[in-house]
Amino acid sequence: MFKRNVEEFFRNLQSDICKKLEKADGLGKFSTDTWKREEGGGGISCVIKDGNIIEKGGVMFSAVEGKLPEKIQKGLNLPETDFFATGVSIIMHPKNPHVPIIHMNTRYFETSAGINWFGGGIDLTPHYVEEDDAKYFHTKIKETCDKHDKNYYAEFKKWADNYFYIKHRNETRGIGGIFFDRLSENNDFTIEDRFNFVQDIGKLFVPIYTHFMENNYKKTFSEKEKNWQLLRRGRYVEFNLIYDAGTKFGLETNGRIESILVSMPPFSSWEYNFLPEKNSKEEKTLNLLKKDINWA
Amino acid sequence: MFKRNVEEFFRNLQSDICKKLEKADGLGKFSTDTWKREEGGGGISCVIKDGNIIEKGGVMFSAVEGKLPEKIQKGLNLPETDFFATGVSIIMHPKNPHVPIIHMNTRYFETSAGINWFGGGIDLTPHYVEEDDAKYFHTKIKETCDKHDKNYYAEFKKWADNYFYIKHRNETRGIGGIFFDRLSENNDFTIEDRFNFVQDIGKLFVPIYTHFMENNYKKTFSEKEKNWQLLRRGRYVEFNLIYDAGTKFGLETNGRIESILVSMPPFSSWEYNFLPEKNSKEEKTLNLLKKDINWA
Repeated sequence: MFKRNVEEFFRNLQSDICKKLEKADGLGKFSTDTWKREEGGGGISCVIKDGNIIEKGGVMFSAVEGKLPEKIQKGLNLPETDFFATGVSIIMHPKNPHVPIIHMNTRYFETSAGINWFGGGIDLTPHYVEEDDAKYFHTKIKETCDKHDKNYYAEFKKWADNYFYIKHRNETRGIGGIFFDRLSENNDFTIEDRFNFVQDIGKLFVPIYTHFMENNYKKTFSEKEKNWQLLRRGRYVEFNLIYDAGTKFGLETNGRIESILVSMPPFSSWEYNFLPEKNSKEEKTLNLLKKDINWA
Repeated sequence: MFKRNVEEFFRNLQSDICKKLEKADGLGKFSTDTWKREEGGGGISCVIKDGNIIEKGGVMFSAVEGKLPEKIQKGLNLPETDFFATGVSIIMHPKNPHVPIIHMNTRYFETSAGINWFGGGIDLTPHYVEEDDAKYFHTKIKETCDKHDKNYYAEFKKWADNYFYIKHRNETRGIGGIFFDRLSENNDFTIEDRFNFVQDIGKLFVPIYTHFMENNYKKTFSEKEKNWQLLRRGRYVEFNLIYDAGTKFGLETNGRIESILVSMPPFSSWEYNFLPEKNSKEEKTLNLLKKDINWA
């Protein structure tokens, strides 16, 4: 059955990513919790903390099913129906402010009313935006997108710019990446084509993030840079709790709260009316947290 | 004009509270920003940080007016109208985990469509719930409520229990207090009666909080207790960003973001699946973060 193939791929992806991140970190080990959802299905939550490079991170797999919650049914304008949803979500908060925060999500959704689609994305939130790193990240993603469709990157990059946007701050969360949703079968793509694309995005996570782990974690940092990291994590919290659709979906479907909120940073801070110094690295970063920058 | 009297009371309340908190803290001084809202009105934000007792706190006054934003107009089921809203909001995050976080808000709202009402409340969020402190807090509030109406306390205490509730955690934010909204003129009360009540609640803030500042700030605390404080502050963030109506109103009316989010704690943390030790003070606190406890 197609949905079981997808579930199996995601399950293996989680395990593969955990192994390779442990190796790259060199110290931190993932601990694993399995959980069941009362209304059907469950998941596996793998969490790492206090590693060499990763301060806190999660690689979460879930496959849930049952009656589609009313709120979502109405939001999607569907009749009463059963649903199945499976996916992998990753969030990594590094210790060193020169290593970026990364987030990836791949997911599949179907209903017995005949809908099925893929969604997901990968995006980077550097505490300090460095042009070379941003270019590397976007180029890698564009190459993978281009293998599947020449329009994917431009379309999904724009989607990420609009999605990962902290409206009340007039800032993007980071330097974006790609975001896509409701990729279903159409005249140009079979559902298997969409699945192949999602698999390639999933496999892209390890080479991209280990690149940043290995290259950036040895850079020294000051107390001022650490404080800036905590402030940027505060923005990450604001985005996730106010805007993030995955968090909302989780809270509305009675998801496992610790797995949903594993995206929260280990420590974060808020300072009233913090203004970066003129011509500082912090100011430069704020100026680069904008939509529509052509990084690739 | 009635609305100008209310505005004036709130303006003086802010200044009075700041003076008395500075005196009780002994070190921290409030810094003041005034701001204007493009669509009409503005405010005064007084912020204190790194005091003897208060780590970060804000006493915010605002008086805004203009065309009622469409989203709120529809939410209140009103025709297009002008509005005026004024209030004082306070939040204090103390350094010592044995001193509670406190929040107070008093506000007045009117529209040219003929509506006017008061709202507000005061509630306490101890990092460690102590029965004596909780009893003191609720008794003081009940005494003030009883002077105005024998039903106020029971009604508004229940309202606070329901309002300051973190649904996804199945926890109350703290030990509650009172919450009320849309107190308008009716057969039993004139709008001046409501104003008198709100004035008394406003005046209650200083004696209550200086009591906790003076009595609790000298208690020693361990690293473990400090870590617990940071986790409880994380919950505070979750409530404010996901549920708080004042925060939502602020974001929707294009309010001043730094004044709205001054409620965010200075440092906070999230730990995956943190479970307190059996029979610990932390576990006891979690067991007391419930609705319908009769503290007074």
